[in-house]
Formats: sequence, structure tokens, C-alpha cells
Amino acid sequence: MLPETVEWRGGALRIVDQRALPDELKFIDCSCVGDVALAIRDLAVRGAPAIGIAAAYGVVLGVLRDRSGLDGYIAELASTRPTAVNLFWALERMRRAALERRDEPDEMFASGMLGEARAIHEEDVRNNRRLGAFGQSLLPSSASVLTHCNAGALATGGYGTALGVLRAAREEGKAIRVYADETRPLLQGARLTAWELSRDGFDVTLICDSMAGCLMKSGKIDAVIVGADRISANGDVANKIGTYGLSVMARHHNVPFYVAAPRSTLDLSLESGDEIPIEERAGDEIRRLPGGRSVPDYIPAWNPAFDVTPANLVTAIITEDGVHRPPYGF
Amino acid sequence: MLPETVEWRGGALRIVDQRALPDELKFIDCSCVGDVALAIRDLAVRGAPAIGIAAAYGVVLGVLRDRSGLDGYIAELASTRPTAVNLFWALERMRRAALERRDEPDEMFASGMLGEARAIHEEDVRNNRRLGAFGQSLLPSSASVLTHCNAGALATGGYGTALGVLRAAREEGKAIRVYADETRPLLQGARLTAWELSRDGFDVTLICDSMAGCLMKSGKIDAVIVGADRISANGDVANKIGTYGLSVMARHHNVPFYVAAPRSTLDLSLESGDEIPIEERAGDEIRRLPGGRSVPDYIPAWNPAFDVTPANLVTAIITEDGVHRPPYGF
Repeated sequence: MLPETVEWRGGALRIVDQRALPDELKFIDCSCVGDVALAIRDLAVRGAPAIGIAAAYGVVLGVLRDRSGLDGYIAELASTRPTAVNLFWALERMRRAALERRDEPDEMFASGMLGEARAIHEEDVRNNRRLGAFGQSLLPSSASVLTHCNAGALATGGYGTALGVLRAAREEGKAIRVYADETRPLLQGARLTAWELSRDGFDVTLICDSMAGCLMKSGKIDAVIVGADRISANGDVANKIGTYGLSVMARHHNVPFYVAAPRSTLDLSLESGDEIPIEERAGDEIRRLPGGRSVPDYIPAWNPAFDVTPANLVTAIITEDGVHRPPYGF
Repeated sequence: MLPETVEWRGGALRIVDQRALPDELKFIDCSCVGDVALAIRDLAVRGAPAIGIAAAYGVVLGVLRDRSGLDGYIAELASTRPTAVNLFWALERMRRAALERRDEPDEMFASGMLGEARAIHEEDVRNNRRLGAFGQSLLPSSASVLTHCNAGALATGGYGTALGVLRAAREEGKAIRVYADETRPLLQGARLTAWELSRDGFDVTLICDSMAGCLMKSGKIDAVIVGADRISANGDVANKIGTYGLSVMARHHNVPFYVAAPRSTLDLSLESGDEIPIEERAGDEIRRLPGGRSVPDYIPAWNPAFDVTPANLVTAIITEDGVHRPPYGF
């Protein structure tokens, strides 16, 4: 059984501390907006849909104390990470819910806001299952699939986007074998995906990111499936650094390259991926490894957290309303 | 100043223990064939040319004790690693030298064998400088170059192949900026290349292997230069795992992809790279990180140490006798 990535319990937000996985299954109880903002900024909770859900509950924690601080809560949560649009989408939805309920008495207002956060959470799981059903139809009855980073239950309200497609395929009786890129620098593919899939009984093999090309060349990969952090109107996809390179290699080997994401990951206000802000994180994430470092601190390191895959390298984008192919009309 | 990667001193072979770099500059003194075989197998000394040189000195250590064991020494050293052909080339050269000197008295024989090993060593450095001069002519006066793994002084008798080209370019007054792939799983790019270049005053930036595609897309890379472990007659290149993916991405972005290697890396007995044996190493190298692990031991990991880049993705192969372009007639 997988733990609940994000769970509202006892008037607080309990999240799995994903930094401690797979060595330890630890939880963090967030009781105020600042706790949630810190958990997002420090990657205790990560994955575009999961960040959005956590932020929505974060707003609830704020208004439970003092509803007049709403704008500040939203600004604080919005400042945590720049790339995943689900964060801003969820905060905007909470802002609108507050506006609609502005005349309600405090208790009713707070309970309505909690209802909205719960709805965002539950819809995400439902959407994961729907997109999983659409996505699995693209896979043959026996498929070897490569994935990058973690777009699983841990990255969402539950079930997962890219990994949700694999779960849905297995539920259809398909034989699914998974290769998981370890996903440097923070190793989400190793620590989260390999762990999540192994715990869920999947046949999963871990590889280093640099091995994906060789694997595709050997003919062992039937499809690449990844999640997304933001998708522009033309179908360009921002996702974990390394995704773009995979798409180039998939095209070179005629391997289909699928992106699985809920519609909350679409940013139709952006014409192309060039407009997506890409978070650059500290070089220390590259230089330092768990328990040690690979190089001294004086070695400069460039550490973009995401890259943008142009629409022409994406075979299809799978959302809860179907399989989209270019030219995209979301 | 860089240390001597491999050095004959006081009747023994002193090698830099490259596993301890960059934290510690340690040396291993090998006094018998078994010491050298172990150092090669366990990667204390690595890099195709350096392995060949170390093995040649290893044969000398053997015949200094008992010349009648020659065939056994060669077999022991040949069994250490399968992919780099320089190992077998150097051992074959030592075997021939022994044959030519078979009628010499013991002392003269041993001294002749040491002379042969020294010649292999000195020729390697000379060849590095020659290929560096040819290779640097391919770079513009200001160039940003991506390299993978370590094909530097540490991988050779000194100076380096891919990094030798960069040194030669700098000696010509060219402004060279280097991006170094960290090169998982063993991080030779981070631990050795970034360290070696930084110590040598180069402007070097460390990236994760998965960032190379994004970097090329941004237009920041003028050329990719790598070394090689074995090159078949048709120009296919076996090199550190991840090289192949880089070549695919370089082609996609119209970035020239150069391979720099001495002729001792050519294996003209093989028609194509399909015939090159690829070493697969323990999955633990992926699962375990310095001071910790990324996933539990029960997660399977696939760990090929090298891949093969087909000749059609290589722009040119630089050796000590010039710049070779397809179709290759080495």
C-alpha cells in the first residue's frame, strides 16, 4: 500500500516527506501557511498536481486562523516554486471560491474553503484515473515503458499521471515492464518512482539517465511516458530536466513519446514553451550527494530544474478528456 | 599541477587512486601483477590509454620476478576489463617484445621489457599532444565545449585525448569554456574532469548528464568532444555510457560531435561496433552513492559501462595522424 501523499486530518495537512524516501516513511504535519510553503519550497511535497493540492489546503489553514489574510497566504504560497502551473491554478481556484463566499459567516466560509480544497484533491485523483484509461489504450498488450522523474501517486492526489497510465494498463491485464530514469540531481526516479512501482508490484528496473539512449537503441523500449509541470497552448511541455533529451532520443528511435497530465497543467495563456519560467536551483544539489559530495564547492554547476520539450517531439498529450494530438486545440 | 596518473618509480608502478579523487590525492604502489590487475578491475586506474600503460608496466613487474610466467601475467591482466582495446593492444605489444627478446639474458630481457613499457607510456603522451594539435584546429577561437566522462590527463599517460584537444586549443590562445557531464554512475565527469580542468585553470561548469540536451537546445554548445574505449574499422565508437545519447542530441542540434583517441584505440579487426564487447557492471554502482544509497538493494538496476555510437553520428575522429572523416580508411 502506498501512503497518502497529501491528507487533511485533524484540522491539519499531513504530507509524506518525500525527501526521506525510500529510506524512511516520514510525515510532516502542516498547521499553518508557512509550514506548507516551506514543504513545497524544500521539496518535501513535489509533483505539479500534488503541489497544487497542498497549496489549496495551505490556503484553508490560513483562513481557518484569519480569513482577512487571504491575499497574503496566496502570495506566499505562489512564491514557492515558479514552473508548475498547477500551483497557480489551484490558488486561483481558491481565490475565486473565497470571492464567491465573501458574504458568508466565518465558519461557513472556512468550511466552504475546505470543501473547495477537498474538491481539487478528489478531482485530481478522478482525473488521474480518467487519463489513465485513455492513456493505457495507447500501449500494446505487452509493453516496456521508460519514464523519467516521478509522475506517480506521490506526485499527485493519488494514482498518478504517467504512472497512472501504467496502473490502468495493468488493470486492463496488460504486461507492463518499466524502466525508471534515476533523474539526477535529486533522484526522484530512483527514490520515488522505483520505490513506488516496486512497492506496487511492478517489474521496474532502475537506470542512470545517460543509459536511456542505449536502451532505446537496443529496441527494448516501446514507449516513453512522462508527466508535465506546465503545457503551453501549442503543446510545448515543461517537465523535469532531462525530459527534452529523452524526447529527442525517442524521435530518433521512432519510439512514441507520451505526456500524461491533468488539464490543470495546461497554461493556455502562454502561446509557447518559451514563455514558461524555468526554475534554477542551487548548484549544491548537483555537487552534493546523500552523505557526501561529488566535487568541491568551488566547482560551478548549472542546475535548471526543468526543460521544455517542443510540441513537435511529443507524440500525444493525454488528459482526463482524451488523447490530444497535434495540432493541439485543448 | 596534475599528478602523474601512472609512474614507474623505484622498481614499482605508482598510480593515482582515482576512486579517492577529488577528496583525496592518494597513490597506490603496485609491486606485482596482481596489484595492477586489481587496480584496473576496481577502477583505481581507468581510461583506455591509462589502462594499457598500467598493464604494460604490470607485465614488467611480472617478468622482473620470473620471466617464465609471461603468458599468465598477460592473461591475468587481459581478464580485468573487456571493452577498452588499448589494454589488449598494450599487452600484445609486450608479448611481441618478449618474443623478440626471448634469447636475451634475464637482466637484459627485463630492462628491454621496461623500455617497451616506457615507450608505450611516452608515445601515448606524444600522441595525445599530436592529436590535440589536430583537434584544436576544429575549434573556433572562442568555443564552448561539452565533454563526457574523463578523457584527460588522468585517463592517459598525461595531457589527455578529448581534454588534450582543449589544452591544445588554449595553448593556441583560444578561449575555451567547458561543460562537464557528471557521468553517472561513477561520476568521472564530476570527480575527475571538473577537478582536473579546474586545477588546470579552465572555466568549467558541471552539469548532470540529463542537462546536456537542454544546453545544446539553448545554443550554448559549439562542439562535443569525447574520448573512446574502442573504435571499429567502420568508425563506430564505444565509449562511456551516455556518449551515444549525446551523439543523437548533437546531431539533432547540428552540433559537431568529435571523438579524440590515439590509434591504439582502433580495433581494425572489428567491422562494426556491434562486435565490441560491452562490460556490464554491478547494479550497486547505480543504487549506492558515496556515503549512502539512493534505493534499497532489491530494486534491479541495469548498468552497462559503455555504449556504441554509430559512425554516422560522429562528425570526425581525431588521432595522432590527423582528422579522419567518413568514410573511414584508418
